[in-house]
Amino acid sequence: MILTVTLNAALDITYRVPALTPHAVNRVGEVHERPGGKGVNVARVLSSLGHACTVTGFAGGHTGDVLRRMLARLPLHDALVPVAAPTRRTVAVTDDSTGDTTQLNEPGPAVTPEEWAAFLSAYGTLLDGAEAVALCGSLPPGIHVGAYADLVRRARAAGVPVLLDTSGEPLRRGIAARPDLIKPNAEELALLTGSREPRRAVRDARRRGAHAVVGSLGPDGLLAATPEGTWQAAPPAAERGNPTGAGDSAVAALLSGLVEGLPWPERLARAAALSAATVLAPAAGEFDRGAYERLRERVTVTAHTDN
Amino acid sequence: MILTVTLNAALDITYRVPALTPHAVNRVGEVHERPGGKGVNVARVLSSLGHACTVTGFAGGHTGDVLRRMLARLPLHDALVPVAAPTRRTVAVTDDSTGDTTQLNEPGPAVTPEEWAAFLSAYGTLLDGAEAVALCGSLPPGIHVGAYADLVRRARAAGVPVLLDTSGEPLRRGIAARPDLIKPNAEELALLTGSREPRRAVRDARRRGAHAVVGSLGPDGLLAATPEGTWQAAPPAAERGNPTGAGDSAVAALLSGLVEGLPWPERLARAAALSAATVLAPAAGEFDRGAYERLRERVTVTAHTDN
Repeated sequence: MILTVTLNAALDITYRVPALTPHAVNRVGEVHERPGGKGVNVARVLSSLGHACTVTGFAGGHTGDVLRRMLARLPLHDALVPVAAPTRRTVAVTDDSTGDTTQLNEPGPAVTPEEWAAFLSAYGTLLDGAEAVALCGSLPPGIHVGAYADLVRRARAAGVPVLLDTSGEPLRRGIAARPDLIKPNAEELALLTGSREPRRAVRDARRRGAHAVVGSLGPDGLLAATPEGTWQAAPPAAERGNPTGAGDSAVAALLSGLVEGLPWPERLARAAALSAATVLAPAAGEFDRGAYERLRERVTVTAHTDN
Repeated sequence: MILTVTLNAALDITYRVPALTPHAVNRVGEVHERPGGKGVNVARVLSSLGHACTVTGFAGGHTGDVLRRMLARLPLHDALVPVAAPTRRTVAVTDDSTGDTTQLNEPGPAVTPEEWAAFLSAYGTLLDGAEAVALCGSLPPGIHVGAYADLVRRARAAGVPVLLDTSGEPLRRGIAARPDLIKPNAEELALLTGSREPRRAVRDARRRGAHAVVGSLGPDGLLAATPEGTWQAAPPAAERGNPTGAGDSAVAALLSGLVEGLPWPERLARAAALSAATVLAPAAGEFDRGAYERLRERVTVTAHTDN
C-alpha cells in the first residue's frame, strides 16, 4: 500500500461561465464537484496505475462529508481523520471565452492540537503497512509550519520512503528533515534556492537535505538530481492543454517507480509521459491513457555529467 | 403568518479576498455562509419586524441540508419541499481593494414534475393559514415560465394577498395573473415596459395587470402606483454602503404594512427607511435597526396627482 497525506484536503468545485465579468453577476452554466487536494489527486492516479492506495489527512464539516461520500466511490482506502472545522472548498471558474481559469481557494479548517495528536497516532499506524508515503500540499490553519519535517522524520524512523510535495516555508523546513524525494516546480525551486537556473537550483535543493530532487519544469519536462546521477526527461513536444494536475501525476509516477524498484531513467520517463498525458486530457487531473502509453516510448531521458 | 416562496433557494457563500485577480489563483481570507434566496431574505427581515413567517420552496442535496440546518437556527418556520437535485450555491467574492463584489450564481436544481406537484399541494395547505404571500426570485431549471402566474392565481382564489418579486418572462407572465403588488427595480421595470422613465413605467406595469406597483429606484427611493394614488418615498439622502438585500427589505416592509393595514404613505415610508438601513448595514442583507428607526421619521413621501 502507498500512503498519501493531504492535510488540507478539498472539495474541488468547477464552474463553467461563458465569460467571467469581474464586479458583476455571473450565471454559472455547469457545476462539477470532485474530491481534491494534492494527495487525493496523487492517490487517484496511483490507483489508475494499479497501486493500492490509502488516503489520510483531515476531513470535517458538511464539505468533509461530501468529500468522503465521493471518495467512497473511488478504489481508494479512506483513512481521513475527522476535524470539527469544515474541509475547504476550491472554486475553479473556467471562462469559455478565453479558456483561462480563475481559482478561489478557501483557507481550510483550523486544526486543534488534539486533532493533530489524533492524526499523528493514525499516521504512525498507517506507516506500518506502507511501502512509501507522499506528503502533499498546503498546511491548513492551526498546523505548525514544521509539521512536514515532523512527518518526514517519523516516516524515516519507520523505514518508509517519503516524498514531500509542498512549497514555501513548510518545504524549507521539511527538506531539513531529509526526505527521500521532493518534486518542486520551477517557481517553488526559485523560492527555495533563490536561483531561476534549474540545474543550479536542483543541486542546491539536494544540498539542503533532500536525497533526490525532481524539478518539474512545465513543457521542458523534468530535471532530476539524485545520488545516482542527474537526468533530464522531456516529452517529444510541448503539449497544449490543461496543466492542472500534471505535477500530481508526476508525483504518482515517481512513487510508483520507487515502489516498483525502477531505475531512475525509467521512473523519469514514466513521470514525464504521465504529466504530458495529464495536460492532454480535457478534465483537470485526469490523464489520457492512450497518450500516456504512446508518450512513454517517446520521452527522451538525457544524463548530465556535471555534478 | 406571512408565507414567502423561494423556488430557487440558495446557500449564499461570501469570500473576502484582498484583490480579485482574474485568471490566477486567489487565496480567500474569510468565508461566510448563510441561507439565501430572495424569499428567505424577506422572511428573515419580516421576523425581525415581529411577524411570524413560513418559508417554502425547494431544498435538496448536501447544500439543501446545510441550508435547512441554518434555517433551523432562525425564528422561521421551514416548510421547504425536498427535491433530489442539490440546492444552488451563490458565491459573492468581495474585493477589499475596490469594495466591489463579483457574483457567481449556480443555476439551481432541476425540479421534476412530481416535485412541482408536491410543492403545489404544500402551497395550497400553507395558503390556508397565510395573511399574505410573497413569491420571490428566479425559477430553477425544470419549472415552467408560467409558474408564478399559476401561484398568483391560486393565492387569489384562496383570498390571500400576493406580492410578486421576480424579473424577465416569469414577471411578465405573473403580472397577467393580477397579483396585488409587484416591486420591480428600475432595470426590471425597463425590461418589462420598455420605458426608462419611472412614472411612465410604473403606470404601464399597472396596466399590465398588477393592482399596485412599487418601483425601487435605488438612491431615489420608491415610486408607487396604487388604486389609491401615486406616491414617491425618498430617504433624506442617498446612503453609501452595500445595496445587496435592500430590495428584499423593501418587500418585507411592504408586506408587513399590508398585513398591518397601514395606509400607503406609511407603508412606503417604512419600506424606504428599511431599504436605506439595509444599505447602511455592513453585512449584505442585514439592516441597522437604529438607522431604520431614525430614517423612518425622516423619509419624505410626496403624492403625485398625475394618474
